[in-house]
Amino acid sequence: MPGYSDDKDAYLKRLRRVEGQVRGIARMVDEDTYCIDVLTQIAAVTKALQAVGLGLLEDHLDHCVVDAARQSHEAGHEKVREAADAIARLVRS
Amino acid sequence: MPGYSDDKDAYLKRLRRVEGQVRGIARMVDEDTYCIDVLTQIAAVTKALQAVGLGLLEDHLDHCVVDAARQSHEAGHEKVREAADAIARLVRS
Amino acid sequence: MPGYSDDKDAYLKRLRRVEGQVRGIARMVDEDTYCIDVLTQIAAVTKALQAVGLGLLEDHLDHCVVDAARQSHEAGHEKVREAADAIARLVRS
Amino acid sequence: MPGYSDDKDAYLKRLRRVEGQVRGIARMVDEDTYCIDVLTQIAAVTKALQAVGLGLLEDHLDHCVVDAARQSHEAGHEKVREAADAIARLVRS
Repeated sequence: MPGYSDDKDAYLKRLRRVEGQVRGIARMVDEDTYCIDVLTQIAAVTKALQAVGLGLLEDHLDHCVVDAARQSHEAGHEKVREAADAIARLVRS
Repeated sequence: MPGYSDDKDAYLKRLRRVEGQVRGIARMVDEDTYCIDVLTQIAAVTKALQAVGLGLLEDHLDHCVVDAARQSHEAGHEKVREAADAIARLVRS
Repeated sequence: MPGYSDDKDAYLKRLRRVEGQVRGIARMVDEDTYCIDVLTQIAAVTKALQAVGLGLLEDHLDHCVVDAARQSHEAGHEKVREAADAIARLVRS
Repeated sequence: MPGYSDDKDAYLKRLRRVEGQVRGIARMVDEDTYCIDVLTQIAAVTKALQAVGLGLLEDHLDHCVVDAARQSHEAGHEKVREAADAIARLVRS
């Protein structure tokens, strides 16, 4: 089971909300809403999506990485290597 | 009309795709996909959403800000002030 | 003269402070400061540097872009194109 | 010893380079360099600083977090909690 299992329902709820917000942005564009107001909403949804990513990442570190480290140093290092790449992608997105 | 009017259909198409991608992330979570793969997808969708924002911003500068500047220095400055706040929100999101 | 001329001294002062903060981070590393505290300081300095960038960008839009737009639509569009690329680099950094 | 000890000299070297780059940006401003060129350099230095942060973070996860996890689940969770906050600050900066 992935690290986020315990909070799965909460993540699904947050992602449904993000999906609705993206649909709302499309509606704003369709209705010729003023550019700046669309941009404000895009910044808000980007933050919401990144917050989901940060939550999943913490759950991953807390379960998969900690569990691997408890198996062996090597297993821990391998999982850290993989998590570090994922963090870099989040920071640069 | 907002600055993005000419490209409205292209923006709507990109936003529909982002909406589908967010739904895809929810499906990944629902199916217990490995955390790192979910995070990779979140980073990709965040970038796609920011790219829409950057496109809208350029259209805004190209139409609303340039048009305002051609009316008067004051009108141009006011629009720049507003756009600068929107840019700061995108950079910090 | 570039758009930031009027605020040149203020920018130089802020950049000197950022330079001192980077030197401070090097000192923290040299003194084996706890990783998390070094990271907190790196995040703060990154923000300070981006804030300088956002300020310069607003000055640029307010002077070079508005002035170009007042010369001709074409000159305005060309400057907007260039500014949009710079904004994309800031958003992605 | 912090997690980055083994690479301390490499980090110090990279931070000295970042410091020199910030000084270079101040020089560009002092010499009235074109705004867009200053912004390009600011984006590059921001990335260099974030790359140092990402490196320190991976070293931290690889040493402090893995070691804590091997002591006890609780110690691991505590270090993960702390690291997650630091990651959030990097993502939002």
